[in-house]
Amino acid sequence: MERSITLKDTAALALGAGILGTGGGGNTYVGQIWLENELRQQGVPCRLIDADDVPDDALLCASGTMGAPTVSNERLMRGDEFAVGMRALEAHLGRKFDAMMCGEIGGANALKPIIGALQLGLPIVDGDPMGRAFPELQMDTFAIGGLSITPMALVDPHGNVVILRHMDTPVRTEQYARSLTIEMGGSAALVMPVITGQQMKKTLIRGTMSLAQRLGEAVLAARANGTDTAEAAAALGNGRVLFRGKIVDVERRTVQGFARGRLLMSAFGDPDDTLEIVFQNENLVAWRNGEVVATVPDLICILGHDDGEPIGTESLRYGLRAAVLGLPAPRELKTPAALAVVGPAAFGYDDVVFAPLPGDLL
Amino acid sequence: MERSITLKDTAALALGAGILGTGGGGNTYVGQIWLENELRQQGVPCRLIDADDVPDDALLCASGTMGAPTVSNERLMRGDEFAVGMRALEAHLGRKFDAMMCGEIGGANALKPIIGALQLGLPIVDGDPMGRAFPELQMDTFAIGGLSITPMALVDPHGNVVILRHMDTPVRTEQYARSLTIEMGGSAALVMPVITGQQMKKTLIRGTMSLAQRLGEAVLAARANGTDTAEAAAALGNGRVLFRGKIVDVERRTVQGFARGRLLMSAFGDPDDTLEIVFQNENLVAWRNGEVVATVPDLICILGHDDGEPIGTESLRYGLRAAVLGLPAPRELKTPAALAVVGPAAFGYDDVVFAPLPGDLL
Repeated sequence: MERSITLKDTAALALGAGILGTGGGGNTYVGQIWLENELRQQGVPCRLIDADDVPDDALLCASGTMGAPTVSNERLMRGDEFAVGMRALEAHLGRKFDAMMCGEIGGANALKPIIGALQLGLPIVDGDPMGRAFPELQMDTFAIGGLSITPMALVDPHGNVVILRHMDTPVRTEQYARSLTIEMGGSAALVMPVITGQQMKKTLIRGTMSLAQRLGEAVLAARANGTDTAEAAAALGNGRVLFRGKIVDVERRTVQGFARGRLLMSAFGDPDDTLEIVFQNENLVAWRNGEVVATVPDLICILGHDDGEPIGTESLRYGLRAAVLGLPAPRELKTPAALAVVGPAAFGYDDVVFAPLPGDLL
Repeated sequence: MERSITLKDTAALALGAGILGTGGGGNTYVGQIWLENELRQQGVPCRLIDADDVPDDALLCASGTMGAPTVSNERLMRGDEFAVGMRALEAHLGRKFDAMMCGEIGGANALKPIIGALQLGLPIVDGDPMGRAFPELQMDTFAIGGLSITPMALVDPHGNVVILRHMDTPVRTEQYARSLTIEMGGSAALVMPVITGQQMKKTLIRGTMSLAQRLGEAVLAARANGTDTAEAAAALGNGRVLFRGKIVDVERRTVQGFARGRLLMSAFGDPDDTLEIVFQNENLVAWRNGEVVATVPDLICILGHDDGEPIGTESLRYGLRAAVLGLPAPRELKTPAALAVVGPAAFGYDDVVFAPLPGDLL
C-alpha cells in the first residue's frame, strides 16, 4: 500500500515523533518547519511505502542528526547536508539508493529522512529500527540483528564529508562518529546505515511512521475536544500515565556529545510524592519515591500537562507542569540480544532490572 | 634515473631521516626494522624514481603515521594498515595508484611510504613536501601550494577505515583527523594526499629521500672514522652545530594528540651557558641564553653527542649528552605563503621573528 506524507500530516507527525522521542531525537519544532519548507519547495508529497513492497535487492539508507539535542536545537543546519551525504555514499559505493528508511522514529530524526527522501526524490519505508529514540548508534534492531552500520557518512554545515568505511564493531563506530560529531560542533548530519531490502525486511520495526502520525493525531484531537492529552497518547501507545506533577529540579550538562542529567518532579497536591528521571539525551530510568516504575527500553515520555506537547531533555526546566507516560517498548527491543544493547545495564545502571510495562508499543 | 632502496640502504636512510625529523616524525628504530622485514618478505627492492619521470596524469599518494611519537613509539602497528588504507582509497576513487610519494621525510614517516610502496608494488618518488617533519597535516608544500589534502584515509590497528572525503580547509582536515587519531588510540595510519603527477611536480621538494640517505651515510662514515658526527651531519645539511652540552631539564606531556614540551641544556664546561628548546612533536624554537638562535621552519636537530644518533622528543631525558644542529630549511618553506603556515607564529610564537639560517637545506 502506498500512501504519502503531505503538508497536512506534518503537525501530527512531528507531535507523535516528539512523544516517541522519550526526551531525545532532537526537538521537532525546527524539523517540522524544515520539512514543511521542503514539501513546499519540491511541490510533491513524500511517498510512504510498506517494507514488504521493497525489493530484496533494493539499496536503502537513513538520514538524521547525530549529537546532543541541546546543540542541534540551537545550531541550525545548512539544509543540503543529507543530500550531500547520500550523494557521497552513492559515489563511494558506485550505486544509487532506491529508497529511504527512518533510522530513529523519535524526535526530529523521524522527520529528517523524509527531508532526505524529498531531496533525492525517493520513497520512504514505514518503520524504523528503534520504535523510539536512543542516544547511541549501535542501539537499533539493525545492529542488534548483526547488520553492519558502516559505511556511514557524517556531514558538517560546511559541506565537509567523512565516510566511516569499515568498522569492526558497532560500539567503535559510535565512538569514532561521536568524536567526529563533537569536532563538527556537537551536532552533525548522519547518513546510515546502508542496507538491502532483504536486510531491512528482516530487522525493521514496521509501521512506526504511521504510529507517530496516529499518536500525534490523537493528541491533536484531544486538544481540540478538550479531553486529556496524556491519556489519549497513553491509550494510542498501549501504555499509561505514570505521574502528573511539577518539575522541581533539573541537572543537565552537555558532556561527551550528549545531554546528560536528571530531573525531579513533585506530584500535584502531594509534594512528597516524587518522580526522579535520569537521561542521556533520552529518558532512561524513572523512580517514584525510590522505586523503579519504568526503564529503558520502555518509553518514558514527558508531555506538557495542559497541551500534551512533548518536552525534550534540552527543554526541561523548573516549574514545568508535566504528565509522564510509560509506553511499552516494541517487542523487538525486549529479546535478550536487544536488552544487552538497550537495557538499563547498557547505560550503566547495572543494579536496575528491566521489569517490562505490560503489552507492546505496536 | 631509476635507483632502488635495498637492505643495504635502510640503516643510513633511517639515520638521515631521524636527523631530518627535528625531534618528530616518529622514531626510526621500529620503522627501520619493519622496512627491512618488508624488503625481505617482498624479495625485491623498492624502486626510487625522479619526480620528472612521473607522467602528468599519474595518480600518487603518500602513507605514514599520524599522532604523537610518544604513542607510536610504544604502540606497534598491525602491519597491513597502509595497504588497507590505499586499497580503500583506490576503491573509493575507482582508480589505482601509479606511484608513491613520501609525505614527510623526517622520522619514521620517511620509511613508511616505502613500506606502502613495497606492499602495493609501486615505485616511490625521490622527494617530499616538507624536507623535514612538521606536526600538523596542513604544514607541507602541497597544501601551501593550494592542493587539497583530501581525500585521505585513516586506518586503526583493527583495520577500521575512515575516509575524509572532502574538507573545506586544510586546518579543518587537521582538526578532524587529529580528533579521530586520538580516538584511534593516539596514533593512526594515514594515507594522504592523493594528487596527480602534474600537481606533484609543481610542489614537491625534490631529492630529499636521497638527502636523507647521504646524511645517514655521512654520520655512519664519521662514526667509522672516529670523526665528529655532528659536524659531518651539519656539513651535509648546509648548516652548523649550534650547541653542545647536557640535557638538564625536560618537560613533556602528550596533549591533544601531540608530544608538547620544552627542554633545557647546559653547555659542556660552562653550566651558565644554556640552550632552551620548545617542541610540538618537532623542535620549534631554540633560545641560547635568552636569544633566539634558530626557529621553524629551519631545522633544529638534537643528536647524541658521541654517536650522532638523532634523539626524538619522545626520548629526551635528563643527563643525555647532545649536539644541537641548525640546518637551513629548504627554500620552498621560506616563501611568505609558506612562512604563514610553518613560521613561528603558526605555532603560537607571535613574538619570535624568523631569522633564517644562511643557505638552503638543498
